[in-house]
Amino acid sequence: MARGEWDFIAWLREKVASDPRLRVGIGDDTAVVTKGSSDLVVTCDMLVEGVHFDLSQCTPADVGRKAMNVNLSDIAAMAAHPRWAVVAVALPRDRGRGLAEGVYEGLSAAAERFGVTLIGGDTNSTPNGLVVSVTLIGEVTEKGAVLRSGAKPGDVLCVTGPLGYSLDGKHLAFTPRVREALLLHERYELHAMIDLSDGLASDLFHLTDESGCGAILEADAIPIRSGPADDRSPLEHALGDGEDFELLFALAEEEAKKLLEEQPLDSSGTHISEVGKATRTSEVLLRSGLRVEPLRREGFVHRW
Amino acid sequence: MARGEWDFIAWLREKVASDPRLRVGIGDDTAVVTKGSSDLVVTCDMLVEGVHFDLSQCTPADVGRKAMNVNLSDIAAMAAHPRWAVVAVALPRDRGRGLAEGVYEGLSAAAERFGVTLIGGDTNSTPNGLVVSVTLIGEVTEKGAVLRSGAKPGDVLCVTGPLGYSLDGKHLAFTPRVREALLLHERYELHAMIDLSDGLASDLFHLTDESGCGAILEADAIPIRSGPADDRSPLEHALGDGEDFELLFALAEEEAKKLLEEQPLDSSGTHISEVGKATRTSEVLLRSGLRVEPLRREGFVHRW
Repeated sequence: MARGEWDFIAWLREKVASDPRLRVGIGDDTAVVTKGSSDLVVTCDMLVEGVHFDLSQCTPADVGRKAMNVNLSDIAAMAAHPRWAVVAVALPRDRGRGLAEGVYEGLSAAAERFGVTLIGGDTNSTPNGLVVSVTLIGEVTEKGAVLRSGAKPGDVLCVTGPLGYSLDGKHLAFTPRVREALLLHERYELHAMIDLSDGLASDLFHLTDESGCGAILEADAIPIRSGPADDRSPLEHALGDGEDFELLFALAEEEAKKLLEEQPLDSSGTHISEVGKATRTSEVLLRSGLRVEPLRREGFVHRW
Repeated sequence: MARGEWDFIAWLREKVASDPRLRVGIGDDTAVVTKGSSDLVVTCDMLVEGVHFDLSQCTPADVGRKAMNVNLSDIAAMAAHPRWAVVAVALPRDRGRGLAEGVYEGLSAAAERFGVTLIGGDTNSTPNGLVVSVTLIGEVTEKGAVLRSGAKPGDVLCVTGPLGYSLDGKHLAFTPRVREALLLHERYELHAMIDLSDGLASDLFHLTDESGCGAILEADAIPIRSGPADDRSPLEHALGDGEDFELLFALAEEEAKKLLEEQPLDSSGTHISEVGKATRTSEVLLRSGLRVEPLRREGFVHRW
């Protein structure tokens, strides 16, 4: 995500009017609004051809599935139940109906897998590339949503799954952690959670910024996917790649100890790793062996 | 709206899974879902540069305002309260931040005017043109939503405002009939309603198709905006132009008589006109003087 985009979101956040029924606005994984006696979560993500995907490298169904899955990942980050989706597409005029059908096959397969009903949408033709925009509405559980903002100094930071090298096959075929998040939220007292879309380093900053705390990451504890060798280290891939769509969450030390012993997701193939702690300062640090240095949002690691 | 688009929506409608809490799916102005003890309405419209607007003919704020207003018009057609909006935009890389700010100024001005809170969104850069996609969530009143499907044979068909020639200034600067629809729904028993986005002829077919009835339109009774002379008659403009964003609604004869006498919207400058009746057949007819002919969806009128 370009730096300019973040400036824009900050600008927007200041401008957006306050609404007493808007519990959480711009700045979390989803918005949270109060409807009747409970809360709804709402999220929206758009995929743009030439920016987020290349149809010479993937199928229309891959694009549709990813468009739904990135939104499902945001709902997962709130530990909420995804329910209803609306979809707006701009379909290139010259590429026929097969493209549209492929996109919707992917969208609806992902929706069906997580019990989401496709309730409406808008179909347009365009002289330019394919655009797919999904809005997903969910419902929080009885325990409410898990926000980014609840981490406390001393909390243990955990992640699901190995991180990094998502472009090596995973970014189009990941499983949004909807069921995992609901199970964790039901069985443990989670203080804060975010999905890893921008990269562990960047998303950790989002969590600490919203929580008003700092953090220290343990480089040796970060689970890393294997991937092709290049000029960046595996650690840099895990910190900076983005599109992992795994979960980063914070919980109290005793609760974390219980969770890490029980490993409640192991039966579904998802191991949970402790990767660091929330701290009282506003710094976000990375410890590698005996060295401690400030973590960079981009995940770049200083070479000594 | 291109014919191919309608085929696609029909295809989609058949594929979309059923959900017991989805009261109204694809085929009305908005979807209606049941949440707790009441219903939510959800709608989504996308505007694409080069298809729906031309930035040499309008400002970025015009685009933002229209993107919000077309969604507000759909919520109006359900006679519901608009509440929350999420916005996804694809911003051309080479046209800078002013474009983004203009779009959001237009969006937020329209939202504020109707009490809508902008709760979130997604900002992307694109190598191609501007795309703005708005999803709007509303709440129905105690009387529920007014659907397209409730017209009964014998019902009187009414419209707000004069129709046609929207491209002559109105399509970028219309007022969505949110307040008018809520007032009408509160004071009268409306059987069915739709907003006029595709054109009176086309939208009347949507209403009769969903209601399972026919209709007869009275050409002389249709209120027509004045516009520049061209090779189409004023009546053809009123039937076929689209983007009026006025309301077409059906109600019982006695109720219509009361409404037409009271003209409850005159004080806000909106006159209501009776334009025809719903009928028992499946035909949709147009009466001009002594002649009665089948109405064409495109609004084209046979030259005698």
